[in-house]
Amino acid sequence: MENFSEWFHNILEEAEIIDSRYPIKGMSVWLPNGFKIRKNILELLKKLLDKDHEEVLFPLLVPEDELAKEGIHVKGFEDEVYWVTHGGQKELNKKLAIRPTSETAMYPMFSLWVRSHIDLPMKFYQIVNTFRYETKHTRPLIRVREITTFKEAHTVHSTAKEADEQVKIAIGIYKEFFDLLGIPYLLSKRPVWDKFPGADYTMAFDTFLPDGKTLQIGTVHNLGQTFAKTFDITFETEDNAHEHVYQTCYGLSDRVIASVIGVHGDEKGLHLPPKIAPNQITIIPILFKKGSEEVIAKCEEIKLALELNGIRVNIDDRDIRPGKKFYQWELNGSPLRLELGPRDLKNNKAILVRRDNLEKIEIDLDSEYSEKINELFDDIYNNMKKTAWDKIKDSVIIIDNLKEVNNVIANGKVVSFSWCGEEECGKAIEEITDVDILGTQNENNEFSQNLNGKKCIHCENEAKYTGLMAKTY
Amino acid sequence: MENFSEWFHNILEEAEIIDSRYPIKGMSVWLPNGFKIRKNILELLKKLLDKDHEEVLFPLLVPEDELAKEGIHVKGFEDEVYWVTHGGQKELNKKLAIRPTSETAMYPMFSLWVRSHIDLPMKFYQIVNTFRYETKHTRPLIRVREITTFKEAHTVHSTAKEADEQVKIAIGIYKEFFDLLGIPYLLSKRPVWDKFPGADYTMAFDTFLPDGKTLQIGTVHNLGQTFAKTFDITFETEDNAHEHVYQTCYGLSDRVIASVIGVHGDEKGLHLPPKIAPNQITIIPILFKKGSEEVIAKCEEIKLALELNGIRVNIDDRDIRPGKKFYQWELNGSPLRLELGPRDLKNNKAILVRRDNLEKIEIDLDSEYSEKINELFDDIYNNMKKTAWDKIKDSVIIIDNLKEVNNVIANGKVVSFSWCGEEECGKAIEEITDVDILGTQNENNEFSQNLNGKKCIHCENEAKYTGLMAKTY
Repeated sequence: MENFSEWFHNILEEAEIIDSRYPIKGMSVWLPNGFKIRKNILELLKKLLDKDHEEVLFPLLVPEDELAKEGIHVKGFEDEVYWVTHGGQKELNKKLAIRPTSETAMYPMFSLWVRSHIDLPMKFYQIVNTFRYETKHTRPLIRVREITTFKEAHTVHSTAKEADEQVKIAIGIYKEFFDLLGIPYLLSKRPVWDKFPGADYTMAFDTFLPDGKTLQIGTVHNLGQTFAKTFDITFETEDNAHEHVYQTCYGLSDRVIASVIGVHGDEKGLHLPPKIAPNQITIIPILFKKGSEEVIAKCEEIKLALELNGIRVNIDDRDIRPGKKFYQWELNGSPLRLELGPRDLKNNKAILVRRDNLEKIEIDLDSEYSEKINELFDDIYNNMKKTAWDKIKDSVIIIDNLKEVNNVIANGKVVSFSWCGEEECGKAIEEITDVDILGTQNENNEFSQNLNGKKCIHCENEAKYTGLMAKTY
Repeated sequence: MENFSEWFHNILEEAEIIDSRYPIKGMSVWLPNGFKIRKNILELLKKLLDKDHEEVLFPLLVPEDELAKEGIHVKGFEDEVYWVTHGGQKELNKKLAIRPTSETAMYPMFSLWVRSHIDLPMKFYQIVNTFRYETKHTRPLIRVREITTFKEAHTVHSTAKEADEQVKIAIGIYKEFFDLLGIPYLLSKRPVWDKFPGADYTMAFDTFLPDGKTLQIGTVHNLGQTFAKTFDITFETEDNAHEHVYQTCYGLSDRVIASVIGVHGDEKGLHLPPKIAPNQITIIPILFKKGSEEVIAKCEEIKLALELNGIRVNIDDRDIRPGKKFYQWELNGSPLRLELGPRDLKNNKAILVRRDNLEKIEIDLDSEYSEKINELFDDIYNNMKKTAWDKIKDSVIIIDNLKEVNNVIANGKVVSFSWCGEEECGKAIEEITDVDILGTQNENNEFSQNLNGKKCIHCENEAKYTGLMAKTY
């Protein structure tokens, strides 16, 4: 992929995902095909969350005084908030903010809802649109002014330990979700100067796009008691004392959808994991003058049989060359195509072609072919996931000298370095290199270096963390 | 129901549907239980629309110049539009309207999308929040400033006849939807002075609430070519000519949910049709000191068996008196409850109690009781629907003299009258009576009078229509 940015722009248009010609910068229209992909992705997410979260829906608008209550928080958003000042021809008494995120909409209500320790924990989520007045260059799904798909979860706990535990649970849910989509990720604890405004600490997932930049695709925040104190959210303990609650929140956005497109796509176009593809298998009848009715009838029969097994199928029986259809459904990311012509019909066979590796597989139409196709879906998914993970693993380069940073970044890779973890030192590193620190690896995984005896790459004090640096979106 | 308004307010709170304490007038929070009801209702609706509509999602904000383009339309909304004037600390170059409805957001895009007659018809829908700066007294779900559940469909056609046909199709879809919810309706063609701003004509569904007022719950508009001309939506005909398209749009809102609550509810509380009840059956173990474990184990077994048959079940095994649980689940509208105590367990039987008529039915736990329960759901649904339809039919009173109107209205009924259909005459009737004309009956149904030889109740010219008048929300 020569130019990812151009590729991404084109694929959104050609695969009819988003129409970005809407007459407001940074706001776009979800087209039917894009909407279906979005819906399938959200269904996977909801299934994970519904196990122990309750779905709710809060208003879009937040009164100015509520938004202003939490000073650190509002400071982080004040340049990005859209303000509603008029209703009809009249100026409003009190300005209303369009939510940039919903802490200040939700927490005044939480202070009414939480009464006793027996009410806790509470775990809510909502999927809504949020708004940021972005002054930087916008890009559909990645940097937008209307985030159309903002999933935000908010939890309330009676102890600090439980909130800390919830951060780990949320990370587990997000890992499972990204795994279902085959999206690889780097999980970092964000540097203190880059955490969510008002949070004690922020854990963040970044994925890696083909242009060598990382894209933040999910964050989990431990809010401690900061907001509880601001919004006076207290509970009665078992001993009849009154204490402030502990809170977490965690969010995902349209960027998850951008990363599915960007991570799996290739020169042929979109490449969708079978779980979320609107058309999991596309049937293309190969038609000649003679016998085309029988071929189409057989295709319809196969479609019905597959649908009975819960597979999403479409038939493309338009009167155009098969080659053109192959091209188009590869571009649309349909994971499998089934070709069936008069000779196949005679032999009661069909040809399957995999989108991931173009392998052709003959299937016997007398056999339990739905099962075979579901197995192929699993295989395609595993292959897509592995390919994506291999790429991100190959892209993280360990360096020993700060001078190497810009070279690695220029090569479209991610830098792994040993670090003391101190704010002053981190900021100096960012200034020297002009590259962002994603954060520290706090889990023992393939991205954690063995730090035994290592020194911080900059200040040469003892190294306490594996740090990651990358060119970011 | 002595005071419907008070009852409605209380039930939203007690059944945990909506929290209206949010600090902006006319904007409320959907609580988990309410959200589930809303979701189940929307799923029924989506299933009907997905047959031949495509779901899309347009931005919330509309540039001022697009909103202003269609003069009649904007006139109808100018007093109700919320305006965004600032992004961060900066004043925007161009004011942005928060959509009061999406014609002016969608149609500039339609003008890019529609090219040729082969693209048509196009049928889209979206389910979004819209905003109206209501100056009247607000009421959750009925008169709000944030309509959280605005389903709007928009269709594009190549002929006037097809658009007219689409109006009938849309009416058919809405009838099916309201029927699924057991909500009775009056279907009227709105008077010309009360049609949608910019429409050729408006068909509207009104239901009847226990306080004797009608509530508009759905509208279908034939837009003709008005918007097509304003937004320059043209297509190439088969003869290579360029013509403006014909359009329809039709919408539903939170009011559907309000009507499910208001129409079916009673002194005991909420009463939900089984299709949309979050808890279709509530199992209440009757516990004594001895044998409670076995009873609960059996309840769990029944729950599993029912869930395998796609039934939504909950068990209330809290340590409180059964009577309190009965009271609470009747208030929550669970259509059936199952009681099981130690003696039932011994006989391998259980007691079902219907929410609609409190009838008790013994079931044999050795039998195919899931089937029996599904039959009961159908029976309950049919009973609820019939009760509601009987009520609305009894409420429409035919009058022969305009002087009777206020008496009928004061008795909490709807007026049926014979009418010439002329605007001048209709407006005079409204002025004399101070009661709204809902419109005319254009279908032959139980609400159409036999007009043979009848005269207009006011001007005494020939009566052409059955008109309806009511106190409206």
